[in-house]
Formats: sequence, structure tokens, C-alpha cells
Amino acid sequence: MQSIERAAAVLRLLAGGAGRLSLAEIARSLDLAKGTTHGILQTLRKVGFVEQDKASGHYQLGAAMLRLGTGYLDVNELRSRSINWADPLAARSGEAVRIGTVLEGQVLVVHHVFRPDDTFQTLDVGSLLPIHATALGKALLAYGASVPARLDRFTSRTLVNHRDLAGALREVREAGWSADIEEHTPGEASIAAPIRAYGGLVVGAIGISGHVERICDSRYRPRPPLVANVRDAARAVSRDLGAARR
Amino acid sequence: MQSIERAAAVLRLLAGGAGRLSLAEIARSLDLAKGTTHGILQTLRKVGFVEQDKASGHYQLGAAMLRLGTGYLDVNELRSRSINWADPLAARSGEAVRIGTVLEGQVLVVHHVFRPDDTFQTLDVGSLLPIHATALGKALLAYGASVPARLDRFTSRTLVNHRDLAGALREVREAGWSADIEEHTPGEASIAAPIRAYGGLVVGAIGISGHVERICDSRYRPRPPLVANVRDAARAVSRDLGAARR
Repeated sequence: MQSIERAAAVLRLLAGGAGRLSLAEIARSLDLAKGTTHGILQTLRKVGFVEQDKASGHYQLGAAMLRLGTGYLDVNELRSRSINWADPLAARSGEAVRIGTVLEGQVLVVHHVFRPDDTFQTLDVGSLLPIHATALGKALLAYGASVPARLDRFTSRTLVNHRDLAGALREVREAGWSADIEEHTPGEASIAAPIRAYGGLVVGAIGISGHVERICDSRYRPRPPLVANVRDAARAVSRDLGAARR
Repeated sequence: MQSIERAAAVLRLLAGGAGRLSLAEIARSLDLAKGTTHGILQTLRKVGFVEQDKASGHYQLGAAMLRLGTGYLDVNELRSRSINWADPLAARSGEAVRIGTVLEGQVLVVHHVFRPDDTFQTLDVGSLLPIHATALGKALLAYGASVPARLDRFTSRTLVNHRDLAGALREVREAGWSADIEEHTPGEASIAAPIRAYGGLVVGAIGISGHVERICDSRYRPRPPLVANVRDAARAVSRDLGAARR
């Protein structure tokens, strides 16, 4: 089974923003012998998970990976149960909606509804957001997700010290919802609430995000009607996922 | 390396529309011993490629697969070079734009631009289209992609016999563009043209699709201005990919 783990490491390396890599670069990054690495790459190529550029001989992820990613979305229950509630939340709040879950210490966006009145937006599904600097992430952290050892700074308002973050997460648990006010992107704010599955376990979060003046009131606090919209949507998804009514 | 191939087969099975499967179902489908299958599944679970439902014990694709799928899109040169030309094509033609490449005898959609004036549309990226019944597919078949052994029927106009299809593909090669007029979906038509990479090899296709009355003229033929729009976009992408000017 060691070869499966090594193959997974090769795929993760190729997905990690590096793009195309040579055999030597892959072998070096994973601390494997070139011969072993070559064997893994040839097998991954055979099954379509990796493609080799003819000109440079460099390796990159293959088209079969996109198909598997879509397959994940198709069977993902969090996503399928959320979709019906994400559109009304976008319509009611007038803001973009995202649904996220935890992946490797970050927030993986599994669904994204564009802001209703905006045309030029980029689809975020499959992208990763920092867990400590987004409302989605803080909703997940407040209910069990692991706090990362390193808290990167994105703006002057990002919570980069563990005591501040722990305090903020206590408030999230007391209030039942989370917010990020210019902690990830200047001028942007977001509100999120946890999604619970059967047994009450938090499996994801749903939230809205947009310009800070729209999300927050004159006192720089999330507008209560928007908070209510987000919490209603989170409860509706949770009910659909079989969580007990709370 | 056999275990990598088996792991790939498990992942493809789980992505294949079946959704969640039990250990016994997976072992049976792949003709493997239960013990072997269990070992593969546990390793795949460890690396995040597979998740196990707590209640049923069934297996499904894991969130890491979505991340790898996004990684494929990030490094996909066909997609990155096409994006700049897909938006103007949608704006000029007023129709939805798709860019496709071949995967396992089908057309894999790697980019999708919504029709400019329509709001309720589903993103198609990562989905598979039949290669013999779509303009994108016929553009790929005309320039080297393998014709499937079985030609499934979707409408009364689908080309389901190999001689008819071969004749249609000859016409595509002569004209330099392809069309599907209600061959995949009643009421829908599409126009596509091949995208060439360095050396002139066809690596993908770009096309528009929409209601047959908009795509075709009163003689049920693709409107020449739309054909010109599609061919211009295909040439522009090909130029960006380094193909010689033709």
C-alpha cells in the first residue's frame, strides 16, 4: 500500500500550485529515488491521472482528475442538500453564498452561488480559504475543526494570535454564528453559520460575503437581518441532513 | 505498481455515478478479494481520497479529489489559454460557450461560459458529453480522436451508424468546423471548431450551443456569422497555444 501513498503524494504535489514538474523535481520534493518516482509516474500516466508534456517531458495532473473531482461533488451530500437553500439565501441577502467544509486545515469551497446583481465573478468551487480568517472557517473551528499552528496574516485585522482566536471562537459558540470583517480581504466581510448532520456534528458551514458596507451596519457590525438569513439557511440545510431541530 | 492501478479503478468506480458503495460491492465490481479491497480503501481513506460514511460504512470519494480536480484546471493550458477568448465569443454570439477535450472516449468540458442573457444555468465544467452527438465531439473526432464502438442514440437525429458518422466527419475536415443540430438534445444545436497546439495537433475544441432557432437559419443550417465567430475564437486560442497560423 506504500505505493498508493506515494502516488497520492505525487498527485498532491502536482496539484499544489507548482504546475508542471520534471521527474527530478518530483523525486527531490518527495525524497524518493528517481527510478521509483519514474515507475509511479508511468503508472499514474497509464490510468490518466497524470499527463506528460511532449516537448519538455514535464508532468502535470491529467484530465481524469477533473472527472474524479466532479464525481466527489456529485455524491457530496453536504453540497447536494445545500444547493436548494443556497439560491434563496443569495436572493434574500443579495450577496454571494459559499458552502465550505474542512480539508487539510483549510476551508474547501464545495458550492458557490454568485451575487445576484453582479456579472463578473469567478467560480470558487474547489478553492481553499484560510480557516482562521474567514467566517466559514471560524464556524468550522468553533465546532471542532483543528486550529492551525500558524496563523497567517492577510490584513491588519486578521487574528494571528492563538489567544485572540480562541476568544473569538468562544463568542461564535455563544452566538451560534461567525463573521469576518476585513480579516481576509480589505473592504470585504462575511457571515457564516455551522451546518450540522445527523447527531448534531458540524460537517460544514454556509455563509455570505460581500462589501463591508453592505454586510455591516454603521457600527461596523454584521447587519442582524443578514445574520438571520444565514442562520435560517444553515438550520434548513441541517434539517435536510437529518440533524435534530435546535 | 499494481496497487496504484487498483486504487485508480476504485476511485473511477466511486466517481462513476454509483455514489456510495459497500466494501462487498466494490470488491465484486472490480473482481478483487475483500481483504485486498479493504486494504486499498483504508489507504485511500488515509490520504483523503475516499471517505467512509459512519452510519452505513459505505465508501465515497473524498474532498481531496475535488482539490486535485481544481489543480488540474489550474495547470491546464488549454483551459487557461481559452478563457480569454471564451468570454468574447459568448458576448459576440450571445450563446453559451464550452471548451472540451477528449477523456475516455467522451468530451470532457474544461471551461464553460454561461449564455450572457440567461441567469438559470448549471455549470458544466467536469461533465462528460457524448463525442459522436455534439459539435465539440465531432470536431475532436474529425481530427484524430477514436470513434467509439457503440454510438448511443439521444434523439431521432443522432448519427448512430458508423458510415453516416464517417461521412459527417469528412465534411467537418473539409469545412474546418462541426455542428450538432438536435443530435444530442431536441431543440438544441451547437457549432464547434478544433483548437490546435504547437505542431498543429488538435488538443481540444471550442463551441457555442443554444436553441436551434437561434443557432440555425430558416433552412436549418448553422448561421454563417456564428460559424465565423466560433472559427475566429478557435484560431485565436490555437495561436495562443503556439500552433502555426493557418
